[in-house]
Amino acid sequence: MALVNENYLKLPGSYLFSEIARRVNKFKKDNPDADIIRLGIGDVTRPLPPAVVEAMKKAVEEMGRQETFRGYGPEQGYEFLIEKIIENDFRPRGVELAIDEVFVSDGAKNDTANFQELFGIGNILAVSDPVYPVYVDSNVMAGRTGPVNAKGQFEKIVYLPCTEENGMKPPLPRTRVDMIYLCFPNNPTGMTLSKEELKKWVDYARENRSVILFDAAYEAYIQEEGVPHSIFEVEGAREVAVEFRSFSKTAGFTGTRCAYTIVPREVMVYDSTGKAHSLNSLWLRRQTTKFNGVSYPVQAGAAAVFSEEGKKQVKEMINYYMENARIIREGLEKAGYKVFGGVNAPYIWLKTPGNMGSWDFFDKLMKDANVVGTPGAGFGANGEGYFRLTAFGTRENTERAVERIRTRM
Amino acid sequence: MALVNENYLKLPGSYLFSEIARRVNKFKKDNPDADIIRLGIGDVTRPLPPAVVEAMKKAVEEMGRQETFRGYGPEQGYEFLIEKIIENDFRPRGVELAIDEVFVSDGAKNDTANFQELFGIGNILAVSDPVYPVYVDSNVMAGRTGPVNAKGQFEKIVYLPCTEENGMKPPLPRTRVDMIYLCFPNNPTGMTLSKEELKKWVDYARENRSVILFDAAYEAYIQEEGVPHSIFEVEGAREVAVEFRSFSKTAGFTGTRCAYTIVPREVMVYDSTGKAHSLNSLWLRRQTTKFNGVSYPVQAGAAAVFSEEGKKQVKEMINYYMENARIIREGLEKAGYKVFGGVNAPYIWLKTPGNMGSWDFFDKLMKDANVVGTPGAGFGANGEGYFRLTAFGTRENTERAVERIRTRM
Repeated sequence: MALVNENYLKLPGSYLFSEIARRVNKFKKDNPDADIIRLGIGDVTRPLPPAVVEAMKKAVEEMGRQETFRGYGPEQGYEFLIEKIIENDFRPRGVELAIDEVFVSDGAKNDTANFQELFGIGNILAVSDPVYPVYVDSNVMAGRTGPVNAKGQFEKIVYLPCTEENGMKPPLPRTRVDMIYLCFPNNPTGMTLSKEELKKWVDYARENRSVILFDAAYEAYIQEEGVPHSIFEVEGAREVAVEFRSFSKTAGFTGTRCAYTIVPREVMVYDSTGKAHSLNSLWLRRQTTKFNGVSYPVQAGAAAVFSEEGKKQVKEMINYYMENARIIREGLEKAGYKVFGGVNAPYIWLKTPGNMGSWDFFDKLMKDANVVGTPGAGFGANGEGYFRLTAFGTRENTERAVERIRTRM
Repeated sequence: MALVNENYLKLPGSYLFSEIARRVNKFKKDNPDADIIRLGIGDVTRPLPPAVVEAMKKAVEEMGRQETFRGYGPEQGYEFLIEKIIENDFRPRGVELAIDEVFVSDGAKNDTANFQELFGIGNILAVSDPVYPVYVDSNVMAGRTGPVNAKGQFEKIVYLPCTEENGMKPPLPRTRVDMIYLCFPNNPTGMTLSKEELKKWVDYARENRSVILFDAAYEAYIQEEGVPHSIFEVEGAREVAVEFRSFSKTAGFTGTRCAYTIVPREVMVYDSTGKAHSLNSLWLRRQTTKFNGVSYPVQAGAAAVFSEEGKKQVKEMINYYMENARIIREGLEKAGYKVFGGVNAPYIWLKTPGNMGSWDFFDKLMKDANVVGTPGAGFGANGEGYFRLTAFGTRENTERAVERIRTRM
């Protein structure tokens, strides 16, 4: 008799975004004429940069000709892309990486979800709260947690509260943790850590032989000088950190699919005899066994992000979204809201007025302003009383949404 | 201290194809003028069909325009593709599927490797021997096996020998098994099962509440009437089977990446209280958490495989490879080899002459004929004494390889 992985049964039945969809659909049915503006899901809306489109078309044509056709590529990605990643995203920041430390994949969601496979089931993980749900759910599925409690928190996970009091910066854990998920610029709060703040985490991990799983999917949105784009800008991080990057938010690849993960050769995990094993070799084994590489035309498109025109076009796109972020942030502040993020990230994290519950605020915002966002409670217990808006809408919709929040709420 | 998943340490250090590469590279260094023909790795060589190229270029252009840009698609794939899959690959064979029973992915290797996650660690798995290594390795990594023995077999796995005596058809297991991996047309033997033979497996699974993980990646190569293309052509299979399909070998997508998995709503796994859980819902939960869908241009290309021109072009490609298969099979038979496969599959499985070890045959074939193939021992203990050649080369190389085997070996 085939038995189920009972860890899956620990997951709550409904997901955040399906509950949002359910409420929006009901509202639309009851109010068919409502002009709804969506600033909820973190999906981009600007088209692919022309340099990417051209490179992908050229690559598709190559696939159609006998002499330039490509079959299976290397599971870890083509060197033509990896070299450009190192040269453009890391070397200018003083970070040197070897070709075999970069693993190209079809999504940072996949990589952040799959990477935990390399770790023993007995590891204790720490996540910030609020948090991107994939870190938690993938570990629940693997059996690294106990059951969920009434607050929506899983036993054995160490939650690091990010609150108004600590400026949305997770405190160091007070009990032992082995795997630490950090995401900066943060989803959902939009906040960043300075190099000094990040160094505390690297030092903690080195002292405790923990591994930091650093999600930098939003690094392209950093506007301020001095904010680290990569954890590897911090001394010692190569010994204890893995970094996840994506072309999704950087270059509009949410529907095109390309990302990459940096696994330095020095990062180690230990077996029960205390012997060290390289995460880099383990991830290579995992990827060669369970993955077959990213589509060649997609990798060709990703490489074009680093061409002169590509870089210019991507910069324009980021500026467009960050102007939206400014409009939301300043508009909400003027309207009397307390807001976080939106300076170095495409997310604005607002405190609901009068301690309103975040789902109540969701309903009110939809009803009164016809604007859809994401209730903070969906990201964890400490997200209650907060609400996420994204800068990924069109300029016109962003301006109209802010105007409506200002005048109708 | 971060602990390693110790199950990874059970895997042998070197992989089949890297050992082949090592030997080929050494031979090339020692014999720089040798004109090596590769009929080893199962990778296609013909370019993408023109209908696919056109559809992908069009889709890339859509991604470059504001009004037709697509961000995140559904994790389970676009309906425009799923509908075509059902209409073309299943309905003509009398198999009805619902839209939500088809999950589009970026590779059958990924899906066959990832699907085991849904099952409890205590399940016993059965695999044929020889076998595609991914089924075994992914279960080893998950902890569903014991250590490996000197024959390369893992404790707790039930190996079903496919031998000359049983016509390369796996016998039903004599002890309890819960998860059964079947691959037909088979990699590496190239053999198929009839509907009656497949029915015995479906009946076994229904009686024992086991689940059959059916890999049909090579179904497009079936030439003979009466050979089932899908396990769902067998009565009762919807209750006990999951099927993996791919565009890789069907339409030359090894470097383009698109596949799909069929999970009927009726297939169940059980918890410790005996309660049934739908694999379809569990896989949906897995995919929405750990996967973000296939690139839109790739899905558009896959849909074009089902256009009138696409079907014609794919058929021509399959015919091309199957003519290679015929040339290899008949050529080897004339040269006195005992061969399996090559009739309904792109693989030819030959018995090495005089009980020669399969690595010895590999070395002799490379040295005397300058032809590279795959030693059967790489696919399992029962692959020893056999050798795999593939029909994916060019016509010219295929003819030259057969001629060399005939005259030089």
